[in-house]
Parts: sequence; C-alpha cells; structure tokens
Amino acid sequence: MSRQRFRETGFTVGSLPTGPANGITDVPGVSVGHVTLIEEREGVSVRTGVTAILPHQGNPFRNKVAAASYVINGFGKTTGLVQVDELGVLESPIMLTDTFGVPAATEGALRYMMELDEGVGAEAGSINIVTGECNDKFLNDMRGLHVRPEHAVEAIREAKAAHDAGRPAAEGAVGAGTGMVCYGWKGGIGTSSRVVEAEGSVYHIGVLTLTNFGKQEDLTVLGQPIGRLLQEREAEGRNDDGSVIIVIGTDLPLDARQLKRLAKRASFGLANTGAIAHHGSGDIVIAFSNGNLVPHEPQSDFVPMRTVREDGALISACFRAVVEAVEEAVYNSLFAGESMTGHQGRTVRGLPVKETAELLRSRLLL
Amino acid sequence: MSRQRFRETGFTVGSLPTGPANGITDVPGVSVGHVTLIEEREGVSVRTGVTAILPHQGNPFRNKVAAASYVINGFGKTTGLVQVDELGVLESPIMLTDTFGVPAATEGALRYMMELDEGVGAEAGSINIVTGECNDKFLNDMRGLHVRPEHAVEAIREAKAAHDAGRPAAEGAVGAGTGMVCYGWKGGIGTSSRVVEAEGSVYHIGVLTLTNFGKQEDLTVLGQPIGRLLQEREAEGRNDDGSVIIVIGTDLPLDARQLKRLAKRASFGLANTGAIAHHGSGDIVIAFSNGNLVPHEPQSDFVPMRTVREDGALISACFRAVVEAVEEAVYNSLFAGESMTGHQGRTVRGLPVKETAELLRSRLLL
Amino acid sequence: MSRQRFRETGFTVGSLPTGPANGITDVPGVSVGHVTLIEEREGVSVRTGVTAILPHQGNPFRNKVAAASYVINGFGKTTGLVQVDELGVLESPIMLTDTFGVPAATEGALRYMMELDEGVGAEAGSINIVTGECNDKFLNDMRGLHVRPEHAVEAIREAKAAHDAGRPAAEGAVGAGTGMVCYGWKGGIGTSSRVVEAEGSVYHIGVLTLTNFGKQEDLTVLGQPIGRLLQEREAEGRNDDGSVIIVIGTDLPLDARQLKRLAKRASFGLANTGAIAHHGSGDIVIAFSNGNLVPHEPQSDFVPMRTVREDGALISACFRAVVEAVEEAVYNSLFAGESMTGHQGRTVRGLPVKETAELLRSRLLL
Amino acid sequence: MSRQRFRETGFTVGSLPTGPANGITDVPGVSVGHVTLIEEREGVSVRTGVTAILPHQGNPFRNKVAAASYVINGFGKTTGLVQVDELGVLESPIMLTDTFGVPAATEGALRYMMELDEGVGAEAGSINIVTGECNDKFLNDMRGLHVRPEHAVEAIREAKAAHDAGRPAAEGAVGAGTGMVCYGWKGGIGTSSRVVEAEGSVYHIGVLTLTNFGKQEDLTVLGQPIGRLLQEREAEGRNDDGSVIIVIGTDLPLDARQLKRLAKRASFGLANTGAIAHHGSGDIVIAFSNGNLVPHEPQSDFVPMRTVREDGALISACFRAVVEAVEEAVYNSLFAGESMTGHQGRTVRGLPVKETAELLRSRLLL
Repeated sequence: MSRQRFRETGFTVGSLPTGPANGITDVPGVSVGHVTLIEEREGVSVRTGVTAILPHQGNPFRNKVAAASYVINGFGKTTGLVQVDELGVLESPIMLTDTFGVPAATEGALRYMMELDEGVGAEAGSINIVTGECNDKFLNDMRGLHVRPEHAVEAIREAKAAHDAGRPAAEGAVGAGTGMVCYGWKGGIGTSSRVVEAEGSVYHIGVLTLTNFGKQEDLTVLGQPIGRLLQEREAEGRNDDGSVIIVIGTDLPLDARQLKRLAKRASFGLANTGAIAHHGSGDIVIAFSNGNLVPHEPQSDFVPMRTVREDGALISACFRAVVEAVEEAVYNSLFAGESMTGHQGRTVRGLPVKETAELLRSRLLL
Repeated sequence: MSRQRFRETGFTVGSLPTGPANGITDVPGVSVGHVTLIEEREGVSVRTGVTAILPHQGNPFRNKVAAASYVINGFGKTTGLVQVDELGVLESPIMLTDTFGVPAATEGALRYMMELDEGVGAEAGSINIVTGECNDKFLNDMRGLHVRPEHAVEAIREAKAAHDAGRPAAEGAVGAGTGMVCYGWKGGIGTSSRVVEAEGSVYHIGVLTLTNFGKQEDLTVLGQPIGRLLQEREAEGRNDDGSVIIVIGTDLPLDARQLKRLAKRASFGLANTGAIAHHGSGDIVIAFSNGNLVPHEPQSDFVPMRTVREDGALISACFRAVVEAVEEAVYNSLFAGESMTGHQGRTVRGLPVKETAELLRSRLLL
Repeated sequence: MSRQRFRETGFTVGSLPTGPANGITDVPGVSVGHVTLIEEREGVSVRTGVTAILPHQGNPFRNKVAAASYVINGFGKTTGLVQVDELGVLESPIMLTDTFGVPAATEGALRYMMELDEGVGAEAGSINIVTGECNDKFLNDMRGLHVRPEHAVEAIREAKAAHDAGRPAAEGAVGAGTGMVCYGWKGGIGTSSRVVEAEGSVYHIGVLTLTNFGKQEDLTVLGQPIGRLLQEREAEGRNDDGSVIIVIGTDLPLDARQLKRLAKRASFGLANTGAIAHHGSGDIVIAFSNGNLVPHEPQSDFVPMRTVREDGALISACFRAVVEAVEEAVYNSLFAGESMTGHQGRTVRGLPVKETAELLRSRLLL
Repeated sequence: MSRQRFRETGFTVGSLPTGPANGITDVPGVSVGHVTLIEEREGVSVRTGVTAILPHQGNPFRNKVAAASYVINGFGKTTGLVQVDELGVLESPIMLTDTFGVPAATEGALRYMMELDEGVGAEAGSINIVTGECNDKFLNDMRGLHVRPEHAVEAIREAKAAHDAGRPAAEGAVGAGTGMVCYGWKGGIGTSSRVVEAEGSVYHIGVLTLTNFGKQEDLTVLGQPIGRLLQEREAEGRNDDGSVIIVIGTDLPLDARQLKRLAKRASFGLANTGAIAHHGSGDIVIAFSNGNLVPHEPQSDFVPMRTVREDGALISACFRAVVEAVEEAVYNSLFAGESMTGHQGRTVRGLPVKETAELLRSRLLL
C-alpha cells in the first residue's frame, strides 16, 4: 500500500515555503539513515531500530556544529545534553532509538567515531554522543534490548549513503520510528522544512520528529479535531504517554543561544497538533546549525561565530519556520504510518489517510 | 456597549469543567484588583494601570505560597523571579503593569507590605516583590511614567475589597490591561479556570492573562483562522510584538517543581490561539499554589509540603487544565476588549465579537 | 585615616598579572560612579547609596554588550536578568544599591536612558535595566527608602565624569557599598582585575564586588583563618546572611554562553575567602564583554560575534582570572572598609588591616 | 603499603562533626560497591572499573528517592540528568565509570533493574539510569571499552553485599576510581560525611567523589599550597583537565529544590582544594535524600514531601556540611591513591602522604 505525505491532501501548514524535499535533508550537508529491525525471534516481536542524523558530511568531532537543546518535558533518557548545553556545539551524529536502546546506540556511535578518528579517546580527548529515544514497548519487545551497537554503526553508514545517493529521509515505521505510536495511530519518523531569506540568500530550517505521544481524541490537524471525528468510527488506540524527539537542523548561521530560542518554539508546533506534553512524555528538542562550524583545534585564539540579527522579522520568521515544520513533520509521521502488529500481538492502525483528507476538505474548504 | 465573555458564544474550550466564575478568583482566597488610568493630561494620553493578584487574603510574607516561574520568551522586565526560582515561594501580591511602571508598582507593593508588617525590611528581613509587565506604548504615553507607587497600593486594596465583595476579576481594558493590544485588536486582562478532582475533593486551577501580543493574521480561535477571516474586512491593526504575562493560581497542593511543570504548559495554550512567541514578546508565566503555605518562621525544623501524585492521569489533567484555561483567558481578554483611542491619536478596535461568533458557528457546527 | 589596598600588604592573590589599576576600570571603556548617602535625618541614620557601572562610554541601548548572569544563591532581588539571559546582551548601565532601593535606582536609570535617547520607550522599544542589590538594614534605615531615582541619575553621571578624569573605582563604604557588612567587618565595594593574552594582545578581566555576606569566623585570607584569629581579640560582628553582587567586565570578545561560564567561576573566588553562600545571601553574578557590541538595529541580517577558542588554556585562564579577581576584590572591599556607626546606633568595625597583614606575614613567610 | 585517611594526619576539615565512618555510607541505607579492572591484556593496560551507589537497600524504581543534579561545568557525559531534573527523583543506583564505559554501565544497571523488577520496560514503564563518568585515558586503554554491562551488575551486587557486611566505601584506585588522576597525583574515590541535628535527631550528609581533575600546582590542603610545595621536589604530573563527579546522599528529608541548593555548594568545597573548574573538566553533582521516598504508584492522590525549614541556620548548616565533606572527600581520594603505572607505561604517583602531613603540621601548628 502506498501512502501519501500530508501535502498530497492539497493542504499546507502555515505560510512559509518549504525546501525542495520538505524535509530535514533540505539543509545542505544533512542526511538521515535508518536501520529497521522487524522480526519474530524466539517468540518475541522485534519492532524497533536506529536512526542517525548527520549534521554535515565531514567529521563532526573535528568540525563541530553550533547546537542547543531544550527539554519540553523531561520524562526521557536522552543522553549528551549536558555537554551540548555547556559548550554550545554538537560533535557527533544525532542518534535516535528506543528507550532501552540508548546505551547500545551510544556505544555504536562511539565506536564509529573512534574508527573514523584515532584521536577520539586518545590525544584529542573524549567525545560527546547525543542519543534521543522514545519508548516503543507497546509494539516492541523492549526488554529484549534488540538494538545493538552495530545497528547504530550501520545507521550512520546508511546516512552517508543516503547523502551520496541524494535520498531524503524515509518516514513512518523506519529506524527509531519502527515501533512508535502517535495519537493512538502508527507514528514514527516525520520530517518537514521551511526556507527563510537572509542577506539575499535562501536558508533552510529542517525538522525531523520521532513521534510517540498523544491520546487519540486530542489529535488536531489544521485546527480540526480529527482525533475525535475519527474515533467515533474506530476502535480506540492506546496510551496517553510516550514521547517525542524533535531535531531541528539549519544552515542559517545561528549560535547556541539563538538555537535554544528556536528549540523552545517546537512546543508551539506540537500544540498545534493537539499535544499538551503529558506527564509521561519525554519531549525533547535538539537544534543545530551547520552554518557555524567550530573546529576542534582552532587556528586562532578567536573563533568567529555568525548570528542572525535579533531585532524583529528575521528571527521571528525562524521561530515561525520551526512551529510550522514541527506541526507538519508530526502530520507526516502519521500519514506515513501503516498499520502494524507487534509485541504480544498488539496492533496499531495507521491513520486513515483518505478519511482524514476528506474530513479536512469538508471542514476547511468553506 | 456590553460585551460577552467567550463562553456566551455557546462554545467551550477543551473538555474540563470550569469553576463557578470561570476565572482565577475561583481559587479560594485569590482575588484581583485593578487601578485603571485613563486620562488626557497636558497633551498626552494616559492609558495604563496596575493589577494586583493576591495569592490569599492573609499576609503573604508571613505565609508564603508555593510558586514557580517559567520564561517562554525572555524579552521582558518582570522582576522578582530570581528568588521565586531559588526558594519556590511567592511572598507578595503579584503586580502587573506597563513596562516602565515596574519600578513604581514594585515600590508601591513594597510600601504596602512595609505598612502591613513592621518586620519587613527590619528584623524579619527583606521581601521579594513580583511584578510583571507588558509594553503599552502604542496606546499609552509610556515615557510619561504615569504609574506611581500609590496606584499599586490602591490596586492591592482594591483586590482586598473585591474579595470581601465576592467580585470576580474584571476583564479587558482594566488595570494593567488598559492600554494593551492583542492580535491587532484590543487586548488586556482575561481570565478562566478549570477544576480537577483529587482524593474526592474539587480543586481549582485559575489563569489570568495580561495579553499584548500577536499579529492579526495569526489569531486562531478553536482552530479557526479568525484573524485572517476578519482581516479581509477590517483595516489592519499593528505590531507583531508585545508580550503576555500569564498567572496561574491553584488550591491544589503542588510544590514549586510541579508548578513549574504546569507553567511550561502555558505555551501550549498560547499556541492554540495562534501564537509563536515572537522575538520581541516577553512571555512569562508565574504559577502559585495556596494549597501549600510556607511560614516565614516555621515552628519545626521540618516543613511538610504536599505534592500531587506524579504517575499519570492527575498531573496530566492539571497540565490540560492550564492549556485550556490559558487559551480561554486569551479569548476572554479579546472578547472584553472594546475599541480605544489613545497615544498620538492611535485607535485599536475591539475584536468584532458578533462576527467572530458567527464565523465560529458557521465553521464549527458542521 | 588612610587605608591600604590588599596588595599593599605585600601579598598577591593567585598567579596572573593585574591590570594597571587592579580594578574593573582597567577594562577600556568601563567606568564606575558612586553616590554615597550618609546623613542623620529626622532621627534616622541614612547609610546607603547607588553605584553605576558603565559597560562602555557610548549609548549602551544602541550598542549593547554581550552579557550573561549566573545566580549562585537566589535569595535576592536583582532585576533585569530575564532579558539578559534570553538575548545575551546588556543594554543599560549596571546599577547597584540597597535592597529596597532597587525600584528607585531602576527608575532613575530608566529616566537617564530616556533622556539620552528619545527612541527609548518610543519607536525603538523598551529598555532593560539591570539593578543588583544587597541588604544594608544593619547600618541603614532601609525602610526609609532613602535612595531616590535622582541618585541613580547622579551615579551614572559620576561614572561618566570618572571616566573622563581617568579615576578608578573608589572602594569601601561608597555608593551601594555604604552600609554593607562583610564577614562581620565593614564591607562594601571592592575591585580587582587580571590580564590575559590572546592573539598577541592584552585583554582585561575586571571584577567589582558589592560585599555584604559571611560570618566573621569564616573569613579566610590566602588560606589563613583570619576571621577566627582576629575574633579572639575583637567583639563579635553580626549576622551570617547578607549578599554579594559580583560584576565581571572584560574587553576580551566572549559571547553570552562563554560569559556565563566565567560567571559560574565567581563561586570559586568567593569560596577562597571562606564563603559557603549562606541561605539568606543573594549571591548573583553579572558578566559582560564590550569586546562584542551588538547594534540595536544591525545593518545586515548577520551579526558577527567573536568568541574565544574553547579548547583549553585560554578559556581556563579566563576562569582563573575570575577566581583570582573575585577573591582579591572581596579582600579589597574589606581593606577599604572603615568603621561605621549607623542605624539604631549600631557600629561595624573595619577589618584591622595592620593586624591582618601581620598575621599573614607570620603565617605565610615560612 | 598502607595509607591513611586524611584525618589520620591529626587535622580536620571545617567545624561540623562527621558520621561514624566519615563516609557516604553513614547515611542509613546507602551502600557502595566497586568492580576494579586492572589487567594487562593483549598489549594494553586496563585500569578502569565501575562503582555503584545504592540510595537505599530496597527497589529504587518502586520507591524513588528525592534527587537533584547540578552541573558545575558541563564538559561531561553523565547520563540520566534530564529526568532527575524534571521529576525530582532518582530511581536507580548511581553508576560511576570511565567516560567510554557509560553506555555499558548504563546497560548493565538497566539489566539488573529488569531482572529485579519485571515491570521495568513492561507495564510499569521505562526506567531512568543515572551514570556519571570521568576520563581515565591517561592510565587506562579507554578506547578498548573494557567496561562491560556485567561489571555494572557486579558492582551493584557488591554494593548490596557491602551493606550486609557493614563495609564502608573503599577509597582510592578502586571501581570507577581505578585509573583517575587528581591534581597530578593518583586520584579516584574519596568519601566523607557530616552530621546535622534537626528536631532533636541526628541526620547524615555524605559525599562520595570520583576525582580526576586539577593541576598539580593548584592543590591546596587546608589553605596551604601543598601542590606548589611538593612540586619543587617531585617530577611533574600531567594534564589540567579531567573531571570530578560528586555524589551527595542524605537521610535528612530534603526535596529536589533543596537538594539542588546543596548540590550547588559542592563548588565551594572543590574551590577549597584549589579547583577552578577547568574548561575540560566535567564537574557534575548528583544529590539525593532517602528521607523522602516517592512510590512508583502512590496509594493516594497526594504524596507528602518533607522539607527542612528554610529560614536560616539549619539549611545553612546543610550547605556547610556539603562544603566541608566535599573538601575532605577530595583529600581522602588523594590520601588513598597509591602510585600506579598503566596505559603506554605512564606512571602517576600517589600523593606523598607523609610529607604532606609534615607540611601541614609545620604550617598550621603555629
């Protein structure tokens, strides 16, 4: 069965233009790789995976990107944020996986980086790996710890290959998104982007979400209570918890403080889909800009950092881009999510895309 | 001209029940007083004021309330948050006023507290006054510093009198809200509340907003793009900046950490009205619970603090209450806002309530 | 009676060289002005004042300086930090005064800035004033609110004049320091500086402290328990609370994130004097760099920011400079503090400088 | 060679009394287990390990302890702090290891908890493991990833056994401390405690440090420049970076906000040993109280939390206890550290304890 992206319904989110692929890979240098683990093994159902996001195609340890994080709701196990917050840089691929896969994915990324760079863990010092997670225990045998370090290595290699092949990020039940559930339907990976203009050039703000949150009755699409409208016709989904990881990437030269301001706007995009950041939802945002590279060993005592003017329209446009792209990335994760049966025979249905589109048409085309 | 509150359109926000007055004064002990300054004086237009919110009717310095703050966007001059964050308590009325009125309102509240309590500034130590603000320079001669300490004293006394008379908080262009503009229409004070049940009893979560933010085309009401729909018919309003102060009060016994979690959900309620937290908008949340009183000089070395169980439905219901009440308080501030002419002859129109209600009816009653 | 600065004992603090005046005014463009209020008035003793620190000699609203704050212990009423933290800039003089003088000093600085710049509070938007404080109620009639807005204006003008005259910052019982008590002896204003080299040029890191904290028995000077040693011979001083405000200024181009890192090191300098940051002590640090100016209305969409390489020796030297200069500034505030009698006839003695120097000599010259 | 603890020199740190073992295990219910990995394997030197600290002897997932963290300098890879900060509880053993061992130690603790509790990762939800680290690459083949999950499991079991046997925490080159270097001498594990009285009962504040920071010339012991004095006689040690993890445990009923206040005072204790928190030092504090247990599934909607009165002497005594115990724990880590040869034949000498004691005697007994 082939599914659509949200825009194929004919509707748009917000007012800003998207990049060419309407995804985080619109940001030059950014690529995404997934390793998807779906198997029945010794009586258990594996429905999990790893996603790697490369901030650029070089060695991120040697050329770090400006970065910041923001914790919307800290019921989560994301690792690596302490150093991001202190130094304002990201020096590893961003790894996403299931909650109990964080140690393995982190170790895998560490091994990849050690192989890439002999100075890591030696004369060049330690490295900080950032790994985000959501809890996929509804569909996946999470206690089985099926994610192993080699899956993380493979996801990073996959991201490299995707870049070389010009492949945008796959969406839905892939990589870390494999076993995720969003608003009671099948969630997972979704992406979107916006472009803004600065000094006469075009810059990209891309978002990738790993969606695993929300109650079915809360789902709102373009302001319409789609969750409640569909719920009357469907068997109910499940829990109200879960989490969402939101990765924001851009080539616009923002520094860590400005990136944190962008990261905080992810809440507004989530809210537009009906979210309230439930107690048990680990809602965490990681934002980076490869428009500001920080060398591991600078040539000079001074390291120039470019920032965006912060007196009005341009920075607010960046905020708007984040709000819109987060909202649309969540929709894309749902539109891409096909029904799946997993752990203990549980089934999560994909969002009925056709009905959703019809509902939107009947309510919005007034 | 008599204006309605939002609910009089026949629509509701969200799913939780409101308190009896659907306002922050539903929280037992909480009251609100306004001093409104509207005059033409020596060629300048004064359109400003002071609002005082009492967390309870006793001496808040001697019996502090649990409290927290959260800064959505820190382009603002709110004072007193450093100590609230350190000690987790509020020990003064919460004062609201215009940006340049903060020193005067703070000094007024200080004078009130010194008169109430001889220990303040003497053997009992200093006191921390919390004062929030928005910028009313579009309608008010803000450079004239028309708010004076005595207005703050008067607003506190007015809040006392309002409690004794059982008066709920007035909305719209009153007190600190006098000169405010929201989504290009007349903003100001709005309030709303929700109730939640815990251990078989009913508790109240009340919100009061001072609204002064947003671009006209962004206003969303119940998911409908009211701003864009009305804009076609109206002359455009003005700026995209401004600010919003959100005060959350409750009698549910939450501690400072839990109150901060509630405070963070205000973003979601704002987003539901179309907000993105523009660069120049000082969006600040102050939350308190008079369900946990902390004596200035405890009788024992141990001070009991009650918290709400934090394993699911109850705390998430509190979050939902905040999201819903913030959204509705913003609507109420707009519904209460009558057209006003002020500084340099500028006019801001009140939201056309009747048309808004008709638009909602035509689009929501499908 | 003429008193010495700490270095006149023949001892130094740490290993880094000082600037020419060993004070915050070594930072090019930085100047300090004090207004000292000492009078007997209607039966009360006024022992208070205002200190203004100019980050540069131009209009700080039009050319903001990179800035950050750090709260060591938030039992304090410093105002203006919300916006400093959000935007990473300081746009006003830094004002210091007594706790209850914060509103007046803030309003005074606001008036000064409005007079200087017609756009303030008008088309150019609001302005954020930063005012720090300590509680001088032991020696000053703090409830009398003797600091008035005009004193703040005068302190700023004094700072301008001091710059033109090449005057370094006066220390001891001057300006905001007038009524302060530190480690049971007379405290107040102290300053110190260090220089670091970057790209072949010399840069300055200056510190000014307003000291009003500590128990007498805790005072440690160069690791020696001077408080305990002197206490045997002196009548005991007083309370263990109070506060300290620490202002760090530099011409080294650091951004807000880096300045926050420096600000956090102030704790280490305080600790070296015997501090533990008592519960009631509002210990707050404000750091700025006039090596990074941010225009109110940039000419371009991109604003360059210089940062210091953050891979080892240089940034650690900056940390060390802060630790050393904070320690020495506290000593200088004590060495400059002459005995004073004030509110309700209370007397606070100045640190016995000669005995202190002798004790240091007998214990350190081994 | 048998080495002393610091107190055996005859000197004390500060004024507060210690608990019976002068260690973190003085806190009832707290125990510590080490797994030490010292071997020559395939041409590489393994000098690393894992340390587990149990906050109580029950299931910490079912009965969580109040907790907070504080980041002095975030150049570190500690994991689990996001959730501690949000929820104010710790629900796992605290694991310490080398930087690249964090994933393995975290996975090991996760496996232990899954075995202990079938609900973990199933119907009871996910679990948050807290793991701190320092970089032991100078003495250990860190790139070899020699710490494996089973070592973490063993360390937890060892902590259980230590409790049953009434064993205090071993110090020096044990567990996570095996390969650490502090002030150029052999560092590692050190511990200390203080007692405070509240409501007539005695409570314990215990500290355990994993020390791996500082330049030799900076080491200060009881205010004396021991590092410089010894350096004249010794070959120089090595780097200025490294890190320190500080764990604070108490049975005094403090809540998360109060524990964060305690955690911030660790800076002052570190400073007393000569630290400045170098750029590359990940200096991180984790504080918990088993005097406040929070059930995973409370019986009531309200969860009582006890706090300590926060109006003066008692809370300041807690701060002082932290400052003193951190200082002494660092000394103990140095006093326990015997010379070690490791990775690439490098040798780090143990602090010459006898000479240090003599220096202290000659300088302090005046």
